[in-house]
Amino acid sequence: MSNDEQTIRAAAATIAPPDEAAIAAAAARLNSLTKPPGSLGRLEELALQLAGATGSARPVLDRKAVVVMAADHGVCAEGVSAYPPEVTAQMVLNFLRGGAAVNVLAAQAGADVHCVDIGVNAELSHPGLLARKVRPGTANMTVGPAMSRSEAAAAVRTGIVLAGELAGQGYRVLATGEMGIGNTTASAALMCVLAGYTPEQSVGLGTGIDETRRGHKIETVARAIACNAPKASDALDALAKVGGLEIAGLAGLMLGAAGQRLPVVVDGFISTAAALVALRLAPGLRPYLIASHQSGEQGHRLLLESLGLRPPLQLDMRLGEGTGAVLCLHLLEAAVRVLDEMATFAEAGVSDKDELKER
Amino acid sequence: MSNDEQTIRAAAATIAPPDEAAIAAAAARLNSLTKPPGSLGRLEELALQLAGATGSARPVLDRKAVVVMAADHGVCAEGVSAYPPEVTAQMVLNFLRGGAAVNVLAAQAGADVHCVDIGVNAELSHPGLLARKVRPGTANMTVGPAMSRSEAAAAVRTGIVLAGELAGQGYRVLATGEMGIGNTTASAALMCVLAGYTPEQSVGLGTGIDETRRGHKIETVARAIACNAPKASDALDALAKVGGLEIAGLAGLMLGAAGQRLPVVVDGFISTAAALVALRLAPGLRPYLIASHQSGEQGHRLLLESLGLRPPLQLDMRLGEGTGAVLCLHLLEAAVRVLDEMATFAEAGVSDKDELKER
Repeated sequence: MSNDEQTIRAAAATIAPPDEAAIAAAAARLNSLTKPPGSLGRLEELALQLAGATGSARPVLDRKAVVVMAADHGVCAEGVSAYPPEVTAQMVLNFLRGGAAVNVLAAQAGADVHCVDIGVNAELSHPGLLARKVRPGTANMTVGPAMSRSEAAAAVRTGIVLAGELAGQGYRVLATGEMGIGNTTASAALMCVLAGYTPEQSVGLGTGIDETRRGHKIETVARAIACNAPKASDALDALAKVGGLEIAGLAGLMLGAAGQRLPVVVDGFISTAAALVALRLAPGLRPYLIASHQSGEQGHRLLLESLGLRPPLQLDMRLGEGTGAVLCLHLLEAAVRVLDEMATFAEAGVSDKDELKER
Repeated sequence: MSNDEQTIRAAAATIAPPDEAAIAAAAARLNSLTKPPGSLGRLEELALQLAGATGSARPVLDRKAVVVMAADHGVCAEGVSAYPPEVTAQMVLNFLRGGAAVNVLAAQAGADVHCVDIGVNAELSHPGLLARKVRPGTANMTVGPAMSRSEAAAAVRTGIVLAGELAGQGYRVLATGEMGIGNTTASAALMCVLAGYTPEQSVGLGTGIDETRRGHKIETVARAIACNAPKASDALDALAKVGGLEIAGLAGLMLGAAGQRLPVVVDGFISTAAALVALRLAPGLRPYLIASHQSGEQGHRLLLESLGLRPPLQLDMRLGEGTGAVLCLHLLEAAVRVLDEMATFAEAGVSDKDELKER
């Protein structure tokens, strides 16, 4: 086993179970607040999850970041996307200049945007860019593996290391985002291999192809799987053969964040495919993952269901970048504020149900 | 027809259709931004709806308010709620002191909370309270009408007038909220009468009753309808016989807001019942209404469906107060910021699909 694979194993082993004492204390507080028990629904569930993940009955999420991992995909040569591959690099520069949707929505949520070149097929230079290129784009997975196993492991490790750096900088929660023309194709392939769906179920319209091109995309995913025979039981093998560098990086980011007790907000279809990989590498990751939105990409709903994730936002978005994840940060913030700021029954002089029973 | 009924008719007639020029200009701008067309899904739909409602291609939502209408319900004598009726007044004071969930979540969203006594069965005095009591609670609707037709009209008019005042104070968007022990019972009854559902379909667990008490609540709703024979074709008749003062007030607030071109964010089950009433009084209201969340109250999903409203938030909340509506304000803000702040393809030097076709 390579050093990088050993790092991944070690990161998975580092993830602590949720802090049950913090959860119990947060639950007791929620039940003392001026509202019927449980009436804030999933906002209360989020509060408890955040307590368990952070190990604090009063979680603080003052510093937030969205990490946008960017990479190119050799499978674009098959004509699976509505956009040319150079848009990946163009959009990275747009992220760095602050003009993309994720920049606007992250600013609203008070989150910093960290943009990572983990595999863009272009020379990129910008003072704000986190230059962590593992290789300049994947190879065309319909004619061979997208990358080598060691490259996949290196990309996962890159995410783990970055999570550690961000935790060290004081971030308390991370949101995932990505950019990579062609990456819904890789995500669909991973969904087929690791979650047992068919290409027909997992392939959608991406950022805007039509039904004819979707048929070609389904066939492309099927060819990639037939060509590479990725192992369902070996997430790293699947990731290398039919995955992507940003997907690998995000999977690593999730593992690394959980190892630092940081909750991770998962964006759309590609980020959820990364979560699928990450959960196979480290099942203990689950209590740290928060699904944000159900996208318009057809495979996303099925993939979320198969992972038992139920996102609070239904916005039919299909952009990626982390846009849905940063919108969900408002809900995390709301959960934390409820715990922190609401009056208790005693403070407010409001009758609660127990009082009622005593009368 | 009474003066108040004439005011309601006039308010309904004042509502302008959406501004198609503003919608077209906003749509053109959305399609020039660095994202695939439509890829922000319902966030883009929200942007267009806000443009149409406000009559501006770049809507400004700088001042936001949530209006919490409070009233009591005589039907509580039938034992339909988990809480005693005096909790209504206690919670009003909690709103005024800033300790309730809606206060916390409104502060997060940058919205002011306006609390209205439109029918609380207690003497309330507080400098922050909007004292607009029409009558001190409704009568028990299982033995006669909840209120008179003229009282119902006066309560609707109260909401219309308040919307005008708030528009005059510079608010750009209103969210609805309510407090009233027993008001899921009245809402369920209105849903039966005006939308044709059965008590079994429309009655839920409210803020926390059990299945046995739910059976009793179903039977209570059936008795109220049998006793009063409210007319399905006359929303004001139904409102008077089996409705509530806060529901009437919120229906009026919606009409009044739309007349001032203010979009209205609709909270949970009770607010949606108010929307049902308001839409019957003024079908032209529809383009101004924005559904926020689907609550855990079982009738809410059916009622939303029957009104053709599809809320973006799925949080299983069942608190009311406007808590779901103020959470949704973040999404409206996001829609406005996307229009305002994102870079265009031309500004960012990103290839768009049209460019691609020309190559």
